[in-house]
Amino acid sequence: MNEMTAYVAAFVEQLVHMGIQQAVISPGSRSTPLAMVMAEHPQLNIHVHIDERSAAFFALGMAKASGKPVALVCTSGTAVANYYPAIVEAYYARVPLVVITADRPHELRDVGAPQAIDQLHMYGSYVKWFVDMALPEGNEQMLRYAEMVAARAVCVATSVPVGPVHINVPLREPLVPMLNESLFSTPSATRTVYRGNKHLSPEMIDALYEQLRHVEKGVIVCGDLHVEGFADAVVELAEALQYPILADPLSSLRTGTHRKQLIIESYDAMLKCETFADAFIPDVVIRFGAMPVSKSLYLWLQRHKQVKQMIVDEAGQWRDPTLSLHVFIEANEVQFCHELAQRASTTSRSSQWISQWQKMNERAKQMLLQAKEEENMFEGKIFIELAQLLPDEATLFVGNSMPIRDADTFFMSSHKRIRLLANRGANGIDGVVSSALGASCVAQPLVLVIGDLSFYHDLNGLLAAKLQQLHATIIVLNNNGGGIFSFLPQANEPKHFERLFGTPTHLSFHHVVNMYDGHYEKVETWDDFRRAVVDALSRPTLNVIEVPSSREYNVGVHRKLWKDVSQEMSNLLNKGE
Amino acid sequence: MNEMTAYVAAFVEQLVHMGIQQAVISPGSRSTPLAMVMAEHPQLNIHVHIDERSAAFFALGMAKASGKPVALVCTSGTAVANYYPAIVEAYYARVPLVVITADRPHELRDVGAPQAIDQLHMYGSYVKWFVDMALPEGNEQMLRYAEMVAARAVCVATSVPVGPVHINVPLREPLVPMLNESLFSTPSATRTVYRGNKHLSPEMIDALYEQLRHVEKGVIVCGDLHVEGFADAVVELAEALQYPILADPLSSLRTGTHRKQLIIESYDAMLKCETFADAFIPDVVIRFGAMPVSKSLYLWLQRHKQVKQMIVDEAGQWRDPTLSLHVFIEANEVQFCHELAQRASTTSRSSQWISQWQKMNERAKQMLLQAKEEENMFEGKIFIELAQLLPDEATLFVGNSMPIRDADTFFMSSHKRIRLLANRGANGIDGVVSSALGASCVAQPLVLVIGDLSFYHDLNGLLAAKLQQLHATIIVLNNNGGGIFSFLPQANEPKHFERLFGTPTHLSFHHVVNMYDGHYEKVETWDDFRRAVVDALSRPTLNVIEVPSSREYNVGVHRKLWKDVSQEMSNLLNKGE
Repeated sequence: MNEMTAYVAAFVEQLVHMGIQQAVISPGSRSTPLAMVMAEHPQLNIHVHIDERSAAFFALGMAKASGKPVALVCTSGTAVANYYPAIVEAYYARVPLVVITADRPHELRDVGAPQAIDQLHMYGSYVKWFVDMALPEGNEQMLRYAEMVAARAVCVATSVPVGPVHINVPLREPLVPMLNESLFSTPSATRTVYRGNKHLSPEMIDALYEQLRHVEKGVIVCGDLHVEGFADAVVELAEALQYPILADPLSSLRTGTHRKQLIIESYDAMLKCETFADAFIPDVVIRFGAMPVSKSLYLWLQRHKQVKQMIVDEAGQWRDPTLSLHVFIEANEVQFCHELAQRASTTSRSSQWISQWQKMNERAKQMLLQAKEEENMFEGKIFIELAQLLPDEATLFVGNSMPIRDADTFFMSSHKRIRLLANRGANGIDGVVSSALGASCVAQPLVLVIGDLSFYHDLNGLLAAKLQQLHATIIVLNNNGGGIFSFLPQANEPKHFERLFGTPTHLSFHHVVNMYDGHYEKVETWDDFRRAVVDALSRPTLNVIEVPSSREYNVGVHRKLWKDVSQEMSNLLNKGE
Repeated sequence: MNEMTAYVAAFVEQLVHMGIQQAVISPGSRSTPLAMVMAEHPQLNIHVHIDERSAAFFALGMAKASGKPVALVCTSGTAVANYYPAIVEAYYARVPLVVITADRPHELRDVGAPQAIDQLHMYGSYVKWFVDMALPEGNEQMLRYAEMVAARAVCVATSVPVGPVHINVPLREPLVPMLNESLFSTPSATRTVYRGNKHLSPEMIDALYEQLRHVEKGVIVCGDLHVEGFADAVVELAEALQYPILADPLSSLRTGTHRKQLIIESYDAMLKCETFADAFIPDVVIRFGAMPVSKSLYLWLQRHKQVKQMIVDEAGQWRDPTLSLHVFIEANEVQFCHELAQRASTTSRSSQWISQWQKMNERAKQMLLQAKEEENMFEGKIFIELAQLLPDEATLFVGNSMPIRDADTFFMSSHKRIRLLANRGANGIDGVVSSALGASCVAQPLVLVIGDLSFYHDLNGLLAAKLQQLHATIIVLNNNGGGIFSFLPQANEPKHFERLFGTPTHLSFHHVVNMYDGHYEKVETWDDFRRAVVDALSRPTLNVIEVPSSREYNVGVHRKLWKDVSQEMSNLLNKGE
């Protein structure tokens, strides 16, 4: 076995040892040793994707759905740059990616050699760790070095805040490794990581509880967060404090088997009602996870800077766009909830505040669920239908822009363990198809709801479904353009609107779905929709269900529902007085 | 007019004043003022492209074909990251792009606000200049500031070495500008730039000539270079020195009306013959432009480090991957050629060396042009055919990987002013469709020759052809995978080859061409090919001509032709002795 092969094998073996089970590889010449040695490893699943932008989002989706780090491998040159959008998303969404880029050796850098670009620190501050590896050597010392880099990379990627790391690997020709049976036979040095959590002292818990002891009007706000055990822990805390939980669709709290009496789903519509928003100003807000999707919640928090806002984030990042943080708590979210709940459970508390929230939420839900009666293909109704149609343990991937907002409004709580995922780190409409397909490798059944522009943006991602014979159902809400812009002020400026914002593509997607050997269906009634979804869930292939809709009509229904909820909230509050 | 509108209008007006005629805009909310004000400007052509990766390559193609700077505008978030591959290419290929990214205002940065990512210095060292602009204000001082930033951006982008610049523009809500007739009526401060060239002193020219005066065995090597007047100037120099010009297909020297007696096209095949390579070792090599495509030339220069290699590059970049540079000349290429030629023309010189090169080149050309007789769809023959079929002033965009190598081997010199373009800055297979379509906006007729993997990689780019009704002809060489890997050593390792390197996609592209309203044709004979190209040139739409070919067959024909040339070179040299 030559030196390069031994070095790369030690590196790959250690990645697997540290928990990498999936690698997404894009074809290239310089990356030959990495690709071939990885393909040889019996415990590593290889996914090959030609378009590196889609490949990186595919890896992101897999890592997001599995909660485990995924390796990415590409060749030198602009391939590396194509990973950038997914790396930015992984950084903000806290997804563990180990990005491995092949590079020319040092003597061929910055001297005009072909496909040799400056890859050092190419992702700037968007990776938690960057290392430019030494050129392969086969001595004991350098094999241990290769293992150490691999182990450390996985370790850094998976430590809080979880995120991407970048390993640049210079390789000299000849690039073909010497594969043989003993490739992974050398016992590698075993490395084990014991990772602690950030844990508040009893005195700190006491001090925090003192600030809440006499506060009846508190609210817990949960955004995108996927920490094991969090649902039960935060419910325990909410029950002890008798605070409602405003649960974003990505909080993992709307679905699952935990108790849901205190879960409030319709706060976005409720807070659009000024009377409600003014009547229900809390004294304390405890926030977990990312800032929720809801704009009305955001504006409400921003408007009331006097409200004591506490943010709990073990990762230590000040995610407070409302700029109204009072207390920052850098601690493990689950432990914090448990300990504060235990401390609080010693006192009994009034349930008046919470019961009012519950009552208003029930009423708002009823009003919003009237959308069930819509006979036209109103986009929001998709989520009401899916809550019924999806089986237990399904994964629902939600596209950005309008779908995630509709999920927020119309996907109500359920005892089914349906998992909602979305790319909310940077909220891009790019790469969503690939992320969902990546997720489908580790989470079944998988349904993606996506708008037509976002679907177009990552059409290339569909190749993975064909080549790897994936099973996924993609529901494309086709309103022929950028639906969200119809909600913004520029919609009133007809002169440039369609060209710059509406951007209709007039694409008939059946062509491209056929090209990728998918099953395509356009549905124009709800009966057809339901049948199509049920059929797709049992057809183990790429299924694309296109739902034609109208941007204007959607805006109209949304506005009417919000107005109805607002009216109802005002009425209830006036009656109550 | 509000302050934000006035500020953005001053900025846009100055961009136009400084020579920006084209802007490629991707839809988004944060970029609303930039997009709407640009759309209002009467002298600015707007191109809207939903996929920012394709948008940036589209702008690159336009800038490359026009030689003029092009503006790019996108919204905040991962949109910015999608530009990265094209920016890397623009940096290495020296293409002027003014990249304008909308951003959240400072108070919404790094606080977890949606779609607010860290855009500062996001392209690292790949842009020549980065500026994070001030928030819009409407006073005289700040309008002059906005103009200054625009003027300076264009100026830096177009100065040697030409390249991309990045302007990040923070904008606060409300984002809709107040458009009215007087938007661009305020006379802006006029800024004019006088730009000098780097010019050697007469003493330096003398000293350089002294090094060449007695050197009969010299060779001029020209890679990718597009400087006005260079063809005539370098021919003048070659004639004065009696040196052959080894002209890369992207040197602009193989085609056009200049004298071509000293142009050598077949050096790649010739230098594959060891007998020839050893017999024709020069004493001096004068290199212009990027390193040529030819690998045999590269290895030949690398092998003979004793050869005095002079590199002329006004941009001052040491593009010498063979690491054998002796003299670096930082001077304007055209002036250098003129002045050295004038100095050299005073002495008469032997023509023995040059006539040998000419004779061998003629023979090698004849051998290679035997590919004309191929009845099968041999990929290399495409370029022999196109040299005949393309009209004067056509632009031939050539894909990376195999097409550019085949153009090198089979596209011989011609008096037609056909321009060959390719993305050789970083040699990526990404973005090639968009680059060619961008070029088609400013260069007609335009033909792109591209492999199937590269075509797949930028399928999304085709949307521009549909929405902007572009006229372009794309010839897809479909060998169902990565043809170039068949030439590499891993082709002998069947175990992982097809999965990791061959990567067949089995795609039938007619589906996607139909989706984009293009005209699709698959041709399997040369008669059909010729007819299809002629038809496409006169059909003002997107034309895709698919040429099915076989990777194995192509490798075989290439190897046979190279062997034949080698044999012939050896025979001629043996006879000559």
